[in-house]
Amino acid sequence: MPRSHKLVIGVMGPAACDPATAEMARAIGRGIAERGAVLLCGGRGGVMEAAAQGAREAGGTTVGVLPGANAEETPPNRHIEVALFTGLGEARNWVNVSASDAIIAVGGGFGTLSEIALALKARKPVVLLGSWRLEIEGNTPQIPRANTAEEALKLAFAAVEDR
Amino acid sequence: MPRSHKLVIGVMGPAACDPATAEMARAIGRGIAERGAVLLCGGRGGVMEAAAQGAREAGGTTVGVLPGANAEETPPNRHIEVALFTGLGEARNWVNVSASDAIIAVGGGFGTLSEIALALKARKPVVLLGSWRLEIEGNTPQIPRANTAEEALKLAFAAVEDR
Amino acid sequence: MPRSHKLVIGVMGPAACDPATAEMARAIGRGIAERGAVLLCGGRGGVMEAAAQGAREAGGTTVGVLPGANAEETPPNRHIEVALFTGLGEARNWVNVSASDAIIAVGGGFGTLSEIALALKARKPVVLLGSWRLEIEGNTPQIPRANTAEEALKLAFAAVEDR
Amino acid sequence: MPRSHKLVIGVMGPAACDPATAEMARAIGRGIAERGAVLLCGGRGGVMEAAAQGAREAGGTTVGVLPGANAEETPPNRHIEVALFTGLGEARNWVNVSASDAIIAVGGGFGTLSEIALALKARKPVVLLGSWRLEIEGNTPQIPRANTAEEALKLAFAAVEDR
Repeated sequence: MPRSHKLVIGVMGPAACDPATAEMARAIGRGIAERGAVLLCGGRGGVMEAAAQGAREAGGTTVGVLPGANAEETPPNRHIEVALFTGLGEARNWVNVSASDAIIAVGGGFGTLSEIALALKARKPVVLLGSWRLEIEGNTPQIPRANTAEEALKLAFAAVEDR
Repeated sequence: MPRSHKLVIGVMGPAACDPATAEMARAIGRGIAERGAVLLCGGRGGVMEAAAQGAREAGGTTVGVLPGANAEETPPNRHIEVALFTGLGEARNWVNVSASDAIIAVGGGFGTLSEIALALKARKPVVLLGSWRLEIEGNTPQIPRANTAEEALKLAFAAVEDR
Repeated sequence: MPRSHKLVIGVMGPAACDPATAEMARAIGRGIAERGAVLLCGGRGGVMEAAAQGAREAGGTTVGVLPGANAEETPPNRHIEVALFTGLGEARNWVNVSASDAIIAVGGGFGTLSEIALALKARKPVVLLGSWRLEIEGNTPQIPRANTAEEALKLAFAAVEDR
Repeated sequence: MPRSHKLVIGVMGPAACDPATAEMARAIGRGIAERGAVLLCGGRGGVMEAAAQGAREAGGTTVGVLPGANAEETPPNRHIEVALFTGLGEARNWVNVSASDAIIAVGGGFGTLSEIALALKARKPVVLLGSWRLEIEGNTPQIPRANTAEEALKLAFAAVEDR
């Protein structure tokens, strides 16, 4: 059966970032909306805000999956159209991953690292942009890495179409 | 600060229902979209599907919060625009409640009853339409009850504006 | 394969209660421990505290499943041996239900009502003691009801052995 | 107020491991029990099973926090005394972290990596034993690393006592 719900691309990243990183996140958000997909993020500041801004500028739908149970606990950024308060604390990171068809991680704190890990566990496509490098006992998991917003978008959408 | 994210009204109800109940759910979905709010539901059949259909017919945004981690586990109905797979099982009922500004319960199985209870616990507005009656040691919690879709919409939006 | 993990009986009830209800909850906790089962509860005061006290007095294991992420957010009562901070808010009610082989609801607020509903949804044995009465469109779900602690224990353990 | 609930040490690691890693996990489990703490793990095989075996051999309490909603979905290993079925899927990793006073990661797959990340995010003590190495833009987070079971136990209990 053809799916009728839209493609969802999650952009994960820290709640604070430098202007260059924000510009990249914004370009990624824009590209997601231009390709007709929904932009999903954690709903807070930094990378999440910039990605949502880009998606809105391109007329896209933005969903913010927030840890608190309401806007007083965790206010969404002003580019979030659908604020999904989960009341789950950091367990919402698992929702971010489950709800996305692919994940683009931009920069990264420990929350982003947990989302990368959960996505790899769920065999969900992940693209890294200036994010974590991982190694265990001499082995390095092969995770696609991009250097530009355009490259990240290409890798993420190609991975989704492969499935 | 004025909120920039949209109002979200949750319509809760069983995954199977008779045509008259479906018609009511559809009218409620339509009314939610006409008032500019997002329709949130559990994403499955019955009341959830009818409400999503109504909202889409009126050009609204529909969000389905699903228990499974992907479309194979829990396929969303075909009127869901944003399918939010949570991978949380029945804990997703708490997300439904947290993410909604008000809840309208149409008919009801035990899942719907849990959402009514969680909404009352979180002091979130709830409107019942042909749903559960509750009593404990001679006391009955005062929950607004509607007989028509129009009445349910009025009660839900009035409750949200009061806050 | 014979199970090696212990039987778990969940006692659900409000965080504040009158002395007579507390006495009943304590007797139920005692009976659970005497039968070799683990007492699981929400870890807070009232019914939860009394049940945990009874179980500890009989030398049993007590598990408190708490909504907060740590003891500062939601301090467990002093009869909880294993405090399981979930950081899930009210979604922890679903954990209470999943983790219990049977549920005894003593009295009840809306949180307890959500646990009764989730247990019925999951087809898990539930026994009510002075708790909620439910009705929908003239139908009343058949849920075993006890008048004494002893009767509640008998019904809960009989239901578990039937499975 | 002095806490009356027991100290909980979480041992995280993959569901399959080589005999040397299992021997280390077992020694860690034994040491946790000997120090009077509860052993918490994900309840499955491999590192989790070996740690639980060690704790039980030393007379300790073992808690397994499982992803499924019941033993059919996710059977606990035979050294788990209290099987806590969460029905939360991988969101149970956040429960593992919240419920532990400190985390020891032994080896590691992606699930373990998510638990390390969530623990670092929650500023919870983490000790690594032959587990992941992390780097981001030339920076490496300082996480205590042990080479033996004894060293891991010392680091974990010292971190808990510091708090």
